[in-house]
Amino acid sequence: MLEQIDLTKSIVKKEYHEKIDRLETRLAELQRECRTLGIPVIIVFEGFGAAGKGVQINRLIHPLDPRGFQVFAISGESEDEKMHPFLWRFWTKTPARGRIAIFDRSWYRKVLVDRFDKKTTDAELEYAYQEINTFEKQLNDDGTVILKIFLHIDKKEQKKRFRKLLASPETAWRVSSGDLKRNRKYELYKEMNEEMLEKTDTSYAPWTIVEGMDRKFATIKIYRTVIDRLNEQVELVRRAGKEKKKAEAEGQSKKPTEEDLVLKSSSLSSVDLSLSYTKDEYKEKLKKLQDKIALLHSELYRRRIPVVLGFEGWDAAGKGGAIKRLTETMDPRGYVVNPTAAPSGAEKEHHYLWRFWKTIPKNGHVAIYDRTWYGRVMVERIEGFCTKEEWQRAYKEINDMEAHLSRSGAIVLKFWMHIDKDEQEARFKERMENPEKQWKITEEDWRNREKWEQYEEAVNEMIIRTSTSYAPWIIVEGNCKYYARIKVLESVVQAIEERLKQEQ
Amino acid sequence: MLEQIDLTKSIVKKEYHEKIDRLETRLAELQRECRTLGIPVIIVFEGFGAAGKGVQINRLIHPLDPRGFQVFAISGESEDEKMHPFLWRFWTKTPARGRIAIFDRSWYRKVLVDRFDKKTTDAELEYAYQEINTFEKQLNDDGTVILKIFLHIDKKEQKKRFRKLLASPETAWRVSSGDLKRNRKYELYKEMNEEMLEKTDTSYAPWTIVEGMDRKFATIKIYRTVIDRLNEQVELVRRAGKEKKKAEAEGQSKKPTEEDLVLKSSSLSSVDLSLSYTKDEYKEKLKKLQDKIALLHSELYRRRIPVVLGFEGWDAAGKGGAIKRLTETMDPRGYVVNPTAAPSGAEKEHHYLWRFWKTIPKNGHVAIYDRTWYGRVMVERIEGFCTKEEWQRAYKEINDMEAHLSRSGAIVLKFWMHIDKDEQEARFKERMENPEKQWKITEEDWRNREKWEQYEEAVNEMIIRTSTSYAPWIIVEGNCKYYARIKVLESVVQAIEERLKQEQ
Repeated sequence: MLEQIDLTKSIVKKEYHEKIDRLETRLAELQRECRTLGIPVIIVFEGFGAAGKGVQINRLIHPLDPRGFQVFAISGESEDEKMHPFLWRFWTKTPARGRIAIFDRSWYRKVLVDRFDKKTTDAELEYAYQEINTFEKQLNDDGTVILKIFLHIDKKEQKKRFRKLLASPETAWRVSSGDLKRNRKYELYKEMNEEMLEKTDTSYAPWTIVEGMDRKFATIKIYRTVIDRLNEQVELVRRAGKEKKKAEAEGQSKKPTEEDLVLKSSSLSSVDLSLSYTKDEYKEKLKKLQDKIALLHSELYRRRIPVVLGFEGWDAAGKGGAIKRLTETMDPRGYVVNPTAAPSGAEKEHHYLWRFWKTIPKNGHVAIYDRTWYGRVMVERIEGFCTKEEWQRAYKEINDMEAHLSRSGAIVLKFWMHIDKDEQEARFKERMENPEKQWKITEEDWRNREKWEQYEEAVNEMIIRTSTSYAPWIIVEGNCKYYARIKVLESVVQAIEERLKQEQ
Repeated sequence: MLEQIDLTKSIVKKEYHEKIDRLETRLAELQRECRTLGIPVIIVFEGFGAAGKGVQINRLIHPLDPRGFQVFAISGESEDEKMHPFLWRFWTKTPARGRIAIFDRSWYRKVLVDRFDKKTTDAELEYAYQEINTFEKQLNDDGTVILKIFLHIDKKEQKKRFRKLLASPETAWRVSSGDLKRNRKYELYKEMNEEMLEKTDTSYAPWTIVEGMDRKFATIKIYRTVIDRLNEQVELVRRAGKEKKKAEAEGQSKKPTEEDLVLKSSSLSSVDLSLSYTKDEYKEKLKKLQDKIALLHSELYRRRIPVVLGFEGWDAAGKGGAIKRLTETMDPRGYVVNPTAAPSGAEKEHHYLWRFWKTIPKNGHVAIYDRTWYGRVMVERIEGFCTKEEWQRAYKEINDMEAHLSRSGAIVLKFWMHIDKDEQEARFKERMENPEKQWKITEEDWRNREKWEQYEEAVNEMIIRTSTSYAPWIIVEGNCKYYARIKVLESVVQAIEERLKQEQ
């Protein structure tokens, strides 16, 4: 892509000043419109060293309200960042609805500078492209506008600029030895950039290559690119809003059609709920498994392997009890249990996966989720908290996230704690009668129970669509609590032991 | 305090087993009660190396629901933590209402291990005690139960335990060279612990010294301490709840009495709002100041000085415009503007200062707050979102926080953007008429305007009570926007220049 770029483009000063005022006013307007409409915006700046990323970012934010944007300068990973999946530090920086995040370098570091420095292996490289595209697609699907600017200068110009910076003690620190090395090997580095541009230029997050030889020309082109794209999105969101209102006014809010895919095969109907252990069997097995878990947990820590365990299941199916037995002998400094409630505040203002990204475990730590991101395809689907299009898209999004975790080294397991409807009723009643357990039962539990069949359909579809080799669902027969707890512990022990064997 | 401790205390196995079951059941109950009542709990474990902190924490959490607590192991500061005030990493870990945070070592590191290692200077030490007490008091005032356990063993026993740990390759890594050094200089280190215990044993966060020679004895004592304290708090909160209900039923909800302190002196009435600049004066001054700010900003970055700038003021007083001019020439990678809205979600579940601690700037960065923690003594006071006792306490709490920031090296300035009532009306009307500005004005702005006199009283009191040498209020005469912006920029420039001079 870079070969075709005409780097001689420039603009005369007078023309520049005439244009820039109008463009600035328009950009400020668009920022306000995006805020009003709740459109999140990401603007990525990549390009050759000294191509003017810093200068152009400064020019771009000039008309913006500083309360509505943030600039992130992405340098090498900190110690803490190294201990997390590569996308973690970017997911946690995604903008809330109506806000603008500007990245001075970005996730592309992984396939550019880090590749050049041989920090990224060939195997990682292929995945990185996929993961980057997926990341951008997920955000775009959720309504985020993604603009990517690539600032291009040639080898000679770059060298000249480095020399100029090096000549003054006030600017010399801005040129690193890495910069100079990449200038010497300009052609090699350019090839990497070419490949990156080709592999990540998508309809949902296109690249704009900006000729960086003439700064004023570049500024105008960047402004125009940003304005056009924001304009387009603002129009789109407005139109969608109007159509929705119109449809509502005409009483035509789309009803689910019968042709919607009904999954005939059911994972849940074939579960053998009669499986059980006696108290003595349970006690004996539990002791052994817990002792083993304690050892494995410190081994995981030593080898820096992170573990993600998700628990879903019917109300009163025994999630809490199973989690308790699982963690009892773990070192409490090495695990966290994250209870997942309905999203609130800032959580609502972001992609639904954002809040889970924030609690992704460090290498060597165990994160247990009591209810998970699967809420999207269960409660949110059934209660209509998201659109059909959104929950249908979610299966792939979740698979992608779990694949990313797995590839970054995590053990990922998901448990569906299963009981039948009668057992649930018995447990609800017991909870109501037992003062020590009353806090566990609410009106809402009874209401959810009435939607048993809807949930059953959703769960079946979820399990089929998101059972993967890297993050399997384990259906836990839960009518006998003893049996369920042992199965959870056994599954965790098995998964860890397998991984440890592989690594040896 | 340690001299009087009888380290020979122990318990026989049979007695232990009889007691522990009952204690475990009771602790589990209390955890549920604390959750129901929304009581946050902090349990700190300190003490000599190998005194059994890890073991005791494991014993203590045994009956707890893992979804309701988290254990934090506090080691040396990470790079990122070193770049923040010392309490930052603890404030951000304070538990939400109803949750338990257990600290395996804690903020006391600063006055123990770090002091022993001479990382804490003598000057820092004195402040550290004060700051720790203030931190604990603020949390306790907000309803957090703080329990501090000190595990005590003598030099000989410690040496014996270290030897045993070192004998096995599986446990040897747990003994550090620091541990051994502190054993060799046991008496010196003990003295530091003595001093710490004396200086931080307070009514709101008392220490319990636990004889650590016999592990079972220690476990029982810790359980009893935790149970007694939680029990006490649960009773207290229950009683307070009942009394409130009773008072409400009797229609006796306390009305503000006339004897409440009325502050006669007023900061606002003496402000000269006629101060102004012409457009030309403004442009000339602005250019010079902005150029200077750009230079100073990079100097701050180089010297790693953090800056905290709070903006408060009447609606439409020009906060946004002033912030914009202030940041226009700053490097966007070195500042963040944090808009402060009404607290939501997790923010409501914590101390009101928690969310601000989360955004405290790193060394070398500038954090600008568009509305601040002063909401506590303005909108929350006036709208009754907190009790009178709470907002009255807030003045000291805020002063303490700002003192901590200042001592950790930050420049702290607060601006009150001031206009009169007529000017506000004119600006509101302009906003309503100008389509580009309509988004800035809401019904609520008009409602707030009706409470002008109440706000005036609150602001006067706030300015008097929280104007400090380390974090002064700057009242900005705002009827002329040009004048206001220049005054803000001048004040920031002046404060930075003064600091840079001091440091030379």
